[in-house]
Amino acid sequence: MHAIIKGLLQKNGSKIVLLVLDGVGGLPYKGTGGPFTGKTELEAAQTPNMDKLSGASACGLHIPVGPGITPGSGPGHLGLFGYNPLKWEIGRGILEAVGLGLDVKKTDVAIRCNYATLEDNVITDRRAGRPPTGRMRKVTERLQREIPEIDGVRFIFGPGMEHRFAVIMRFPETLTPEAAMVNDSDPQMEGKSPLPLIPKHPKAEKTAAIAGKFINKVEELLKEEHPHNYVLVRGFSTHPRMPSFMEAYGLRALAIASYPMYRGLARLMGMEAPDFEGSFGEEIEYMKDNWNSYDFFFIHFKKTDSFGEDGNFAEKVKKIEEADRALPSILALKPEVLIITGDHSTPAVMKGHSWHPVPVMLHASNVLGGLTEGFSERQCLKGELGIIPSATLMPLALANAGRLKKFGS
Amino acid sequence: MHAIIKGLLQKNGSKIVLLVLDGVGGLPYKGTGGPFTGKTELEAAQTPNMDKLSGASACGLHIPVGPGITPGSGPGHLGLFGYNPLKWEIGRGILEAVGLGLDVKKTDVAIRCNYATLEDNVITDRRAGRPPTGRMRKVTERLQREIPEIDGVRFIFGPGMEHRFAVIMRFPETLTPEAAMVNDSDPQMEGKSPLPLIPKHPKAEKTAAIAGKFINKVEELLKEEHPHNYVLVRGFSTHPRMPSFMEAYGLRALAIASYPMYRGLARLMGMEAPDFEGSFGEEIEYMKDNWNSYDFFFIHFKKTDSFGEDGNFAEKVKKIEEADRALPSILALKPEVLIITGDHSTPAVMKGHSWHPVPVMLHASNVLGGLTEGFSERQCLKGELGIIPSATLMPLALANAGRLKKFGS
Repeated sequence: MHAIIKGLLQKNGSKIVLLVLDGVGGLPYKGTGGPFTGKTELEAAQTPNMDKLSGASACGLHIPVGPGITPGSGPGHLGLFGYNPLKWEIGRGILEAVGLGLDVKKTDVAIRCNYATLEDNVITDRRAGRPPTGRMRKVTERLQREIPEIDGVRFIFGPGMEHRFAVIMRFPETLTPEAAMVNDSDPQMEGKSPLPLIPKHPKAEKTAAIAGKFINKVEELLKEEHPHNYVLVRGFSTHPRMPSFMEAYGLRALAIASYPMYRGLARLMGMEAPDFEGSFGEEIEYMKDNWNSYDFFFIHFKKTDSFGEDGNFAEKVKKIEEADRALPSILALKPEVLIITGDHSTPAVMKGHSWHPVPVMLHASNVLGGLTEGFSERQCLKGELGIIPSATLMPLALANAGRLKKFGS
Repeated sequence: MHAIIKGLLQKNGSKIVLLVLDGVGGLPYKGTGGPFTGKTELEAAQTPNMDKLSGASACGLHIPVGPGITPGSGPGHLGLFGYNPLKWEIGRGILEAVGLGLDVKKTDVAIRCNYATLEDNVITDRRAGRPPTGRMRKVTERLQREIPEIDGVRFIFGPGMEHRFAVIMRFPETLTPEAAMVNDSDPQMEGKSPLPLIPKHPKAEKTAAIAGKFINKVEELLKEEHPHNYVLVRGFSTHPRMPSFMEAYGLRALAIASYPMYRGLARLMGMEAPDFEGSFGEEIEYMKDNWNSYDFFFIHFKKTDSFGEDGNFAEKVKKIEEADRALPSILALKPEVLIITGDHSTPAVMKGHSWHPVPVMLHASNVLGGLTEGFSERQCLKGELGIIPSATLMPLALANAGRLKKFGS
């Protein structure tokens, strides 16, 4: 589909805004007697602005990966950005690295690391007793100072929570995915020895050798630091190498997200993603300040997902209402296309991501509209988009923005 | 899909009618205060016959190429005829040739030609000053007389509008698509020299050489005819070579269309397509006269698209009403399957083709029905077909005609 889209692209001055209310899709509240009974989070929320807008929008539901498949944040956003998540996989190491705020380039192999406890060459605790985050941040900073590079490969450390951190191995040259074909050293069980790193492709030999030296250096540096005296490595992966937003869609794209992972995901697609931290209102203000410099704006609203994960139905409802109150300030910018949706569903009643199709509305001038009385899962089922793969939203956005020429004559 | 269908075909005496109201899909009228406010062309039209029939039909919407992709007439009809337009591409030269009423065979390379002005081997006007159609028709007829063949390859000319015409190079042997792998000679800019024709495949060498001789002959014949003293060639292409309607579906197919392009498209699929010109009523009369000789009838109604392209909402509405009035005379023939739809949407408010799904109703005896109160975009969203790729309509037509056996046991 990207090849076809690319052949049809035409430039104009239109603006596209993708507002992602993370995990916005939900399921009916199961308690009885209260105001939420039988309603989903979107149905329970007072959202006069979104309700009104839905009538002038193309509405529907989208499926990020496939029926019954619960997406992580990576595949969820890949789908929204128009990349089929089954084709473009973001490796575990890459996702961990971007989630910790590291910048990933096409010269990099990223790995997830755990501090662990090693005794007589046996792993006795894979998580080193879950040490405090603050203490481990200092340890990781020390490793960064002591191991800036190995054999011409730069090492970049990203401290994480408790025993977790990420490492980027930055090579002098651009890599292909084969460079990351190295197994995990983590035996996945306590009482076993770490696994030796074995390259599964000739192009991975250098990666395995240098990662092996890295493990040895860490062991040497931490030998007095029991219980966090060892490192386990997992998820060797390279940049997913998908075409950038500019290559795929001809769009100058700005990502505005307060959480590092979403900025990192956006950067993987070649979006500009400044280290922005602020309220949702400040995110919109920032978009306004940069309105003329970009064609596409991805605004990420995290809290709907967080409260869904917590199983806090009432607070998720409040966060949806908060997003709704900010809608007029987005509409005031008069984008040619405004898409409001989530990257996946996170029903509070399930306390986690789910496979359920995600409600979406696409507001633009050339829509049918008039089919919904509000913005919710059940209303969107009546909409003109039907139930579609998430990755079709970008072609629809481009079409509605007047950025696609006719196919054939 | 064609391979599966082919294995399931069974013959019977059933008749299938595909009535294409070109560009029938639309969008709501944006003016206020009048009778059209908020209604699409189909909603605004008084269509008692189609409305009644929709309740006894399987209704839905179909997408010719893909979400957000606006189809040209070629891909639009390919989809209706059951051929995935992303797989079966109709080359620019072929489309121009069939649009000008030329018959295209599997031995042919077709090219689009422009009369142009050449001065000191530089193109000074790519359109030769847009000369009058009548005068250029005479010039093209002279070329036809003077260049009947080159090196055993027949040349067949099709005069067009103003500076445009088409040429078919008819080889003695059946060709594969590689034979057309020759670049355009058109430099796409004035002030440049024509580009030399360079074969991009060994099988295109003969094509390039003979086309080069053709250009030289034209230059020689027209040297005194400034400003139309040269020819630019573009869009070298061969017959798309899809299986014919008989091969794919076992159907004897008749196309009844007053515009050459649609007859030409139908002939590419192996349909019979007589040079018919007449009103819609006469088209239906012609179908009646030939009812016993064919299994499948494609009737093309052009005017809905023409007024959509003009942005003339009111006239498009009238043309829909005209089609509706003719419906009883089609139903009187008692076809086992009657499909009414468009090849794409042409909303009058957009003055052009669009990507929007096209409403369709399939009338046959074994449908669910009872889901719609009329025939329109919004009504069809309630229908039993859902939103489907256009190319799935032909298998549905065959099934409803009792022409497909069970798959597996």
